[in-house]
Amino acid sequence: MTAIDINSDVGESFGRWHLGDDAAIFESVSSANVACGFHAGDPSTLAQTCRDAVAAGVTIGAHVSYRDLAGFGRRFVDCTASELADDILYQIGALDAFARAAGARVRYVKPHGALYNAVVAHEAHAQAVVDAIQAYDDSLPVLGLPGAVVLKKAESQGLRGIVEAFADRAYNADGTLVSRREKDAVLEDNDTITANMIRLAKAGVLIARDGTEIHVDAASICVHGDNPHAVATAAAVRRALEDAGIEIRSFV
Amino acid sequence: MTAIDINSDVGESFGRWHLGDDAAIFESVSSANVACGFHAGDPSTLAQTCRDAVAAGVTIGAHVSYRDLAGFGRRFVDCTASELADDILYQIGALDAFARAAGARVRYVKPHGALYNAVVAHEAHAQAVVDAIQAYDDSLPVLGLPGAVVLKKAESQGLRGIVEAFADRAYNADGTLVSRREKDAVLEDNDTITANMIRLAKAGVLIARDGTEIHVDAASICVHGDNPHAVATAAAVRRALEDAGIEIRSFV
Amino acid sequence: MTAIDINSDVGESFGRWHLGDDAAIFESVSSANVACGFHAGDPSTLAQTCRDAVAAGVTIGAHVSYRDLAGFGRRFVDCTASELADDILYQIGALDAFARAAGARVRYVKPHGALYNAVVAHEAHAQAVVDAIQAYDDSLPVLGLPGAVVLKKAESQGLRGIVEAFADRAYNADGTLVSRREKDAVLEDNDTITANMIRLAKAGVLIARDGTEIHVDAASICVHGDNPHAVATAAAVRRALEDAGIEIRSFV
Amino acid sequence: MTAIDINSDVGESFGRWHLGDDAAIFESVSSANVACGFHAGDPSTLAQTCRDAVAAGVTIGAHVSYRDLAGFGRRFVDCTASELADDILYQIGALDAFARAAGARVRYVKPHGALYNAVVAHEAHAQAVVDAIQAYDDSLPVLGLPGAVVLKKAESQGLRGIVEAFADRAYNADGTLVSRREKDAVLEDNDTITANMIRLAKAGVLIARDGTEIHVDAASICVHGDNPHAVATAAAVRRALEDAGIEIRSFV
Repeated sequence: MTAIDINSDVGESFGRWHLGDDAAIFESVSSANVACGFHAGDPSTLAQTCRDAVAAGVTIGAHVSYRDLAGFGRRFVDCTASELADDILYQIGALDAFARAAGARVRYVKPHGALYNAVVAHEAHAQAVVDAIQAYDDSLPVLGLPGAVVLKKAESQGLRGIVEAFADRAYNADGTLVSRREKDAVLEDNDTITANMIRLAKAGVLIARDGTEIHVDAASICVHGDNPHAVATAAAVRRALEDAGIEIRSFV
Repeated sequence: MTAIDINSDVGESFGRWHLGDDAAIFESVSSANVACGFHAGDPSTLAQTCRDAVAAGVTIGAHVSYRDLAGFGRRFVDCTASELADDILYQIGALDAFARAAGARVRYVKPHGALYNAVVAHEAHAQAVVDAIQAYDDSLPVLGLPGAVVLKKAESQGLRGIVEAFADRAYNADGTLVSRREKDAVLEDNDTITANMIRLAKAGVLIARDGTEIHVDAASICVHGDNPHAVATAAAVRRALEDAGIEIRSFV
Repeated sequence: MTAIDINSDVGESFGRWHLGDDAAIFESVSSANVACGFHAGDPSTLAQTCRDAVAAGVTIGAHVSYRDLAGFGRRFVDCTASELADDILYQIGALDAFARAAGARVRYVKPHGALYNAVVAHEAHAQAVVDAIQAYDDSLPVLGLPGAVVLKKAESQGLRGIVEAFADRAYNADGTLVSRREKDAVLEDNDTITANMIRLAKAGVLIARDGTEIHVDAASICVHGDNPHAVATAAAVRRALEDAGIEIRSFV
Repeated sequence: MTAIDINSDVGESFGRWHLGDDAAIFESVSSANVACGFHAGDPSTLAQTCRDAVAAGVTIGAHVSYRDLAGFGRRFVDCTASELADDILYQIGALDAFARAAGARVRYVKPHGALYNAVVAHEAHAQAVVDAIQAYDDSLPVLGLPGAVVLKKAESQGLRGIVEAFADRAYNADGTLVSRREKDAVLEDNDTITANMIRLAKAGVLIARDGTEIHVDAASICVHGDNPHAVATAAAVRRALEDAGIEIRSFV
C-alpha cells in the first residue's frame, strides 16, 4: 500500500498571542513542525503542543529557526555557522524536553522560514543544520526542498534527508517553487491540489505551471495551518489521499 | 574518607559580553551551575561551557532562572507556577542538548538568583521547580538553602534535595544568611572561610555571626566566580579542604 | 455641556501576531493607550498605530509596562525603582518618536497590566512612574485607579493625575474592583454598562455590587478592545453617552 | 584654525554585563555614539551614558542597529526597509528621551556594526536610515564611510552626510578599508596613527597601504573604545591633534 506523510507548522503562538488552529491541523497531519521559541513558541506553548501532538498520534518535529522573534524567523540573519549550529541544538534540546514529558521524542528537524530558504543553497548554514542534528541525534531526518544543499550534506554525513512537496504552491519546470511575487504562485482550488497530491503520492510526479512533469521522490507533503482556508485544504488533502487508498503516516 | 562538593556559577557570558573566569573556576570546583539562556548564556556559551566542564571533569548542573536577561535573573517575576515549570523544563532540555553533545548529561538543577531566593518560601514556585525536574528526569537532585521549601517538596515527591552552604557568607543563628544589606554579610578573609568550610565538611557545623553552632547537613559548598577575588577564594577553599584530607567530589 | 474621555488599549500586536481590532476601537474612543514595545508593540506597529490614531483624531497615550513580552506585562517584576523609571522613560521616548512622525505627540501616560495594579499601592514603583514622566515632560498626566498611590505622588510633584473608571467591571463598596476570580466581576449587559457610565459622567457616581453609591471624580472611562464583544461595548458606551448629551473628548 | 571631530562607541553595556571604559573615552572624544538598546544598552545604561556625556561636554549621537542583542548588531538581518526605518526611529526616540532628561539632545545618527557596513551599498537599508532620520528630525546628520550610499541618499534628500575616517584601520587605494581578514588591517602603532590623523585633519589625505594618496573630506575620526589599547589610542590621537594645533570639536 502506498503511504505518504503530511506535515504542517504548529505551536506558533507566543504568550498572549495566538496563531493557527492547531487542534484542527492535528486532525489532518501525521507530522507536526513545532516552533521551538526562536521565531515563535513560548515554553508553555511547546508543552501544550507536544501534549496535543501525542494525544493526536502525530509525530513531533523541531521547527528550528534563526533567532528572530520580531520577524517570525522570516528574515535571513547572517550569523556564523557555529552560532547557527548552537542556536539549533538549543532549540532541539528544549523541544525534546517537552516531547519527552509528553511521552514522545523529537523525531525529525525542519528548518523554518528564512532558514528553510537559506539552506537550499547556503553551504555554511546548511552545514550548521546538519552539524546540530548530528550533535544531538544522528537518527533524526531533516526535511527540505528537492535538491536542497541541506539534504545533500545530510546524506553525505550519513543522515537521512527527506524531500517534501508543497500542496498549495505552483512549481516551475526546474522543480523550484514559483515565487510568491508571481501570479498563480499559490494554488487555491482544492480539486487541483488534491489531484496533484494523489499523483505525487502514487507516481512521484508534480506538474509544473508550464505542464512539464517533474519527478520528485517526496516522502512528505507540507500543508500550512495559519489560516482557516489552509486548515480546510489540509483536511481535503488528507481525505482525498485516503479515499485514493493512500495511507497517511509519518516518514519515521 | 570525608568528601564534599564545591559548586560555582559558570557560563554567564552572553553574546559579546564576557563574565567570569570560568577556566579558573573549573580548576577548583566539582560541580558547575551552567546558565541556560534565561538570565545569561547564549547557545554558543552553553556549548563551550559544557565542553570545558567535561574537559575539566566537572559535573554539569542546570542553573535555571526566571526569564529575565535584562535583570540577570535577579528580579522576582510573578509568573504562574505553570509558566515557571515550563520555563524551567525548557532550560533543562536546552542545556542537556549541549551536555550530551559534550559527552555528559545535566546531573542536577539549581535555581538561580531571585528564583533561588523565592523557592526558599514561595510554595507555588518551589513546586514548579520540582514539577519541572520530575517531568524531565526524577533522578536529578535540586540544590537549595537548608530548610528551603523547594527541598522539602522535592523530597516529598521522591526527588533528592541537596543542601548547600555558602563559603563567603555570614549566617544568622537560625541558619539563614545575613542580609547583604548588613555589615559583615560577606566574608573576605580566606583563613576564616577555609576554617569554616573544613568544620562544615568534617562536623556538619557552621558558626553563626553570634557564635551559635548551626548543624547543617550540607553536601555542597557554593563559591562564586564572577570576580577575581572569588576565584582566589574558590581555589583556597579547595586547597584547604584537600589539605585537611577531605575529598572534593560531586554529590551525584 | 458635560464631557468625558473614553480610553482603550491599542497597538498590542507584535510582529506576525495580531491582536485587537484597533480600527473599530478608534471609532469609539477619544484616547488610545498605545503599547510601547515592552509588553507588546513592535516598532512598525507603533508607527501604524500612531498614524491611525492621528487619522481618527484620537489622543495618543503611552501604555508603559514592565519589560515582559512573554507575559504581556501581566506579571509583576520586582525591578528597582531606578530600573523601572528608566524602562518607562525609554518607552515614552520611543513612542513619542512615532507620535511626532505622525504629526502628534504623546499626551499622557498609563501604566499597563501588572504595573497598573502595582502602582495602586507600591510606593517605589509608583514613584518610578512619576519620576519618568517628570524627566520627560511634566505636562503629561498619568491615568490610574481612584486612590492609587501613583496619582497621589503625581499630584504631590505637580503633575496631573487622572482618575478613570472601568465600564465593564463591577465595583466593591470601597471603590476597588471586584476581583476577576469572583462571580460577576465582569459586566456583560450593555444596558447596565451604559446606564452606569451615564450616571458616572453626569453625577460622578458608581453603584457598587452591594448597592453602595461610590463618588468617583473620573475624567475617563476605560473600555477594553481585545475581543469582539468589547468592541461592541465600546461602541455602545460612546453612543449612549452621546445620546445622553455627553461629549466624548480627551482630558488633555 | 583647523578642527575635527573624534567619535567613539559608548554605552555598550547591558544589564549585568559591562563593556568598555566609557569614562576614559569621554576624556578623548567630542562625539559619543550611544547604543540604543537594539545591539547593546539597557535603559539604565542609556540614562547613565547620556548624563556622563553631558557632564563631559560630549555630543550625543544615536548608534542605531539591527535588532540583534545576541549578535551585538554584527550580523546582517534581511529585514524590510519599512521594518528597519521603524526600528531606527524607535531607537532614536528612546535615546533622545534620555538625552533630553540629561539636558541635551540626540544630535546625529550613526549606523552600528552590520548596519554600518550594509548602508555602504544596500540601497533599501540606506534609504531606511535616511527615512527614519527625516521622520524624526531632518537636522540630524548621519555618519558613514566615504562614498557610502547612505551619505548620498541623505544629501539628495537635504540631510547632512558626514564622512568619517578610522584611526586604527588600514585603507586600500580605492578608499575602502582593508578587510580585517587581511594582515595589517588594524594599525597598532600610535605614532603612525597620529601622523595619519594629523595629515587627514590638515590636508584631507589618507595614505593607502600601497602608498596611494586618498583624498577624504572627513569631518570626524572614529576611534574604538572597547579595549584598553583603544582607549590609549584615542587619548594619543586627541593629544597629537591638539599639539598640532587642531581643535577637537563636534561637527554639529
